[in-house]
Amino acid sequence: MATPNKNQITKKALALHKKLGGKIRIVPAAPVRNRADLSLVYTPGVGYVSSHVAKNPKSARELTMKGRTVAVISDGSAVLGLGNIGALGALPVMEGKAALFKTFADVDAVPIVLDTQDADEIVETVIRIAPAFGGINLEDIAAPKCFEIEQRVIEALDIPVMHDDQHGTAIVVLAGLINAMKVVKKDIQKSRIVVAGVGAAGVATMRLVKKFAPKAIIIAVDSQGIVGHSRIDLNSTKAKLLSDGIIDGSLEGGLSVAVTGSDVFLGVSQPGVLTTEMIKTMRKDAVVFAMANPTPEIMPDEAKKGGAAVIATGRSDFPNQINNSLAFPGVFRGALDNQVRKITDDMKVKAAVAIAKLVAKPTAVKIVPDMFDKKVAKAVAKVIK
Amino acid sequence: MATPNKNQITKKALALHKKLGGKIRIVPAAPVRNRADLSLVYTPGVGYVSSHVAKNPKSARELTMKGRTVAVISDGSAVLGLGNIGALGALPVMEGKAALFKTFADVDAVPIVLDTQDADEIVETVIRIAPAFGGINLEDIAAPKCFEIEQRVIEALDIPVMHDDQHGTAIVVLAGLINAMKVVKKDIQKSRIVVAGVGAAGVATMRLVKKFAPKAIIIAVDSQGIVGHSRIDLNSTKAKLLSDGIIDGSLEGGLSVAVTGSDVFLGVSQPGVLTTEMIKTMRKDAVVFAMANPTPEIMPDEAKKGGAAVIATGRSDFPNQINNSLAFPGVFRGALDNQVRKITDDMKVKAAVAIAKLVAKPTAVKIVPDMFDKKVAKAVAKVIK
Repeated sequence: MATPNKNQITKKALALHKKLGGKIRIVPAAPVRNRADLSLVYTPGVGYVSSHVAKNPKSARELTMKGRTVAVISDGSAVLGLGNIGALGALPVMEGKAALFKTFADVDAVPIVLDTQDADEIVETVIRIAPAFGGINLEDIAAPKCFEIEQRVIEALDIPVMHDDQHGTAIVVLAGLINAMKVVKKDIQKSRIVVAGVGAAGVATMRLVKKFAPKAIIIAVDSQGIVGHSRIDLNSTKAKLLSDGIIDGSLEGGLSVAVTGSDVFLGVSQPGVLTTEMIKTMRKDAVVFAMANPTPEIMPDEAKKGGAAVIATGRSDFPNQINNSLAFPGVFRGALDNQVRKITDDMKVKAAVAIAKLVAKPTAVKIVPDMFDKKVAKAVAKVIK
Repeated sequence: MATPNKNQITKKALALHKKLGGKIRIVPAAPVRNRADLSLVYTPGVGYVSSHVAKNPKSARELTMKGRTVAVISDGSAVLGLGNIGALGALPVMEGKAALFKTFADVDAVPIVLDTQDADEIVETVIRIAPAFGGINLEDIAAPKCFEIEQRVIEALDIPVMHDDQHGTAIVVLAGLINAMKVVKKDIQKSRIVVAGVGAAGVATMRLVKKFAPKAIIIAVDSQGIVGHSRIDLNSTKAKLLSDGIIDGSLEGGLSVAVTGSDVFLGVSQPGVLTTEMIKTMRKDAVVFAMANPTPEIMPDEAKKGGAAVIATGRSDFPNQINNSLAFPGVFRGALDNQVRKITDDMKVKAAVAIAKLVAKPTAVKIVPDMFDKKVAKAVAKVIK
C-alpha cells in the first residue's frame, strides 16, 4: 500500500532540503557588531565567565547553552520505518526533530549522529559529550539495545535522558487512549488491550498504560505470536514484561487469538497485520490505533468496516494522528524549566493526562489536540517536575 | 598587571551571559507553520530524504546540516590563559566561537565540550560524533597532547580538522609578520626570529613561518630557556622541531641570549617575560609580538622604550590585535565551500598572505585588517582549496 502522494511529497521534500541545505541554523543569541560586543561575547569578557562557571558549575544553567539546549542523538539503527540506515541517513530526521523542538517549545536542540552502533560505545560517547547539554533525547536506536543504553545513560548523568521512540510514543498513545475510552464510554481499568509490536514503542507503551491502569489486561503480540509463559524464545525485555506482571501471558497463539474479545488494539508493528475480520471478533466499539508508519496495520476504512468505533494512525492525512511531537517538546521544556534530573513514570502519566485534557470533548475523530496548538507543550511542561 | 576595566568588563560579561542564557540559538532554517510544512520537514517527507542520503552519502553535503556545520570541540584542558578549567568552564568560549563563526563567515558551529581529557578517549569521541559535521575545530586542548590528537583525528576522518590554537594563531601571526616586515623594510628570509612559548601556538607558528620563509633563522625559547641541541629535557614535539630543521638549536641560554641580535620576537608565552632592556639588544627596528593574554609578555609602551618599531598584542585595546578570528571563520568557510578534506600547510600560508594583502599600506599601527571587515573571511575562504 503506497502512501498517498508519495512521489509528490518525495520530490517536494528533496527539493526543500536541497534549497535549505540542512534544516537548522546556529545563530548568535545577540548580534556581534563591534569590538565592544566582541569583548563581552569573546575575549576578554568570556574569560571571566568561564572562570565563574568553572568555579560554580551550577551557574552553567544560567550562563551557558546548557540551560536551554538538548542533544538529539541517534546511531541510525532504527530510523522511522526505514530500519538500520546508519548515521548519515538518520541525520535529516534528527534535524527535523531539532526544528520541531524549537517550533513547539523554544528548546534549542543539537542533532548528533553516531558513527557506532555498539551499545557500550554509544553509552560512553553520550556521557562524554553531555556537559554542554541540559537534556539528552535518544532517538531511533534499535530495540532491545535501546533499553539498556537508555538505562545506563540515565544512571550516569545528572540531566534528564529520554529515548523518545519509547516514552514519547507511550505518552501520546496513553493520551489518545484515555480520550478514546471516553468516546466509547468504557473503563480502561476493566479493558483488555492488545499491543502488537514489542519493540521500543510497544514495551514503553505497555508499561505506561499499566502504570496508569494497573487493572487493565494487556496482551503483547510480537512477530512470533502472543508473548506468553509457554514461549521459550523470549529475550530478557519480553520475559521481564511477564515477570513484572505488565502483560498477561496465559494465552497462546497469534494476533487473531489475542484480539478476540479485546477492547483495544494498539499497533506499533508492521503494515497490514490487522484485518477487518479480526476486528469483528473484538468487543463492541473497538478502539484501534494502527500506528505503523507510513503504512498502518490496517487502513482506517477497513478498520471501520470491522466495527472499530475509534481509529487512530500515525499519519497526518487521517484523523487522530498519534505523533510524538505532542509530547517530546513539552517534556524537555518542562525538564529544563524545572531542572528535572530524571523523567519519571509519574511525570509521563501526568503528561499523557495533560495532553488528553486539552481535548475538551473527545469524539471519534478528535482524541488528541492539534500539534500546532501552542497549549500542548505548555501543558506538558507544567507537569514535568 | 591588571587588564584595564577588568571589573567593569567582568560585570558586563556576566550580566550579558545571564540575560542571554547562552550565546547561541538553534533555529529552523525555514518556519514550520502547518501540517504541510511538517510533512516535508518531518514525517513522512523526511523519510524519503533519509533513504536518499543513506543510499547516496555524498548528498548529505547538500541535503543536511553537514554541508554548512562544524563542531567546535574542547576538553577544557587549556582554556584561554586560564589553564585546565574543564569542560563546563570551556563552554562559554566555545559558544563565543560559534557566535563568531556565524557572524564572520555564515558557518553554523556546534559547541561540544568533553567530559574526558584522555587523548585516546578524545580521539575516539570526536570520530564517533563526526558524521553530522562538515569540519572539526578543535579548541583549547593542552599541548603536547593536542598535536597527537589533531593528527589522529585528521587521519581518521574525511572532513577537515584543525586545532585552532595551533593553526589559526599561526596563520594570523604570519599575516601580521609579513606586514610588519614590510613596515621595517626587512626581508623575512634574512631575519632572525625568536619564538617564546613552545606550546600549541608556538609550535604551529614556527612551522608555518619556516614554511613561508625557509631561510629565516628561528630560535625557540621555552620556560627552561633556548630549545637547543644541548638540552636533555626536550619532549618529542620539541626534539622534532630540531630534527626537522625548523629551529636553530645551536645557542644555549635564556630568552635574553636568544633575543640579542634578533629581528623579531613572537611571544605566545607568559606575562612580563620580555623587558625593555632585552629589546634594546635586538637589531634595529625590532618587531615585537607580545601575544600572551590578557597580559602580554611586555606592555606596548615599554616595548617602544626599548626601540621596537612594530608592536602587536592579542588585545583589542592596543593597535595590531593578533586574533584568531581573522583566520578560523574563513578557513572553515573555504573548507566547506570547496569540500576540502585536509587543510594543508600550503593553504595556511596562502591564508596568511591573503590576510596580509588586505592591508594595502601597512604601518606600524596597522599590520592586520579589522576583524569586522567582511572581506577577511571571504579572502581566506577563497584560498582554502
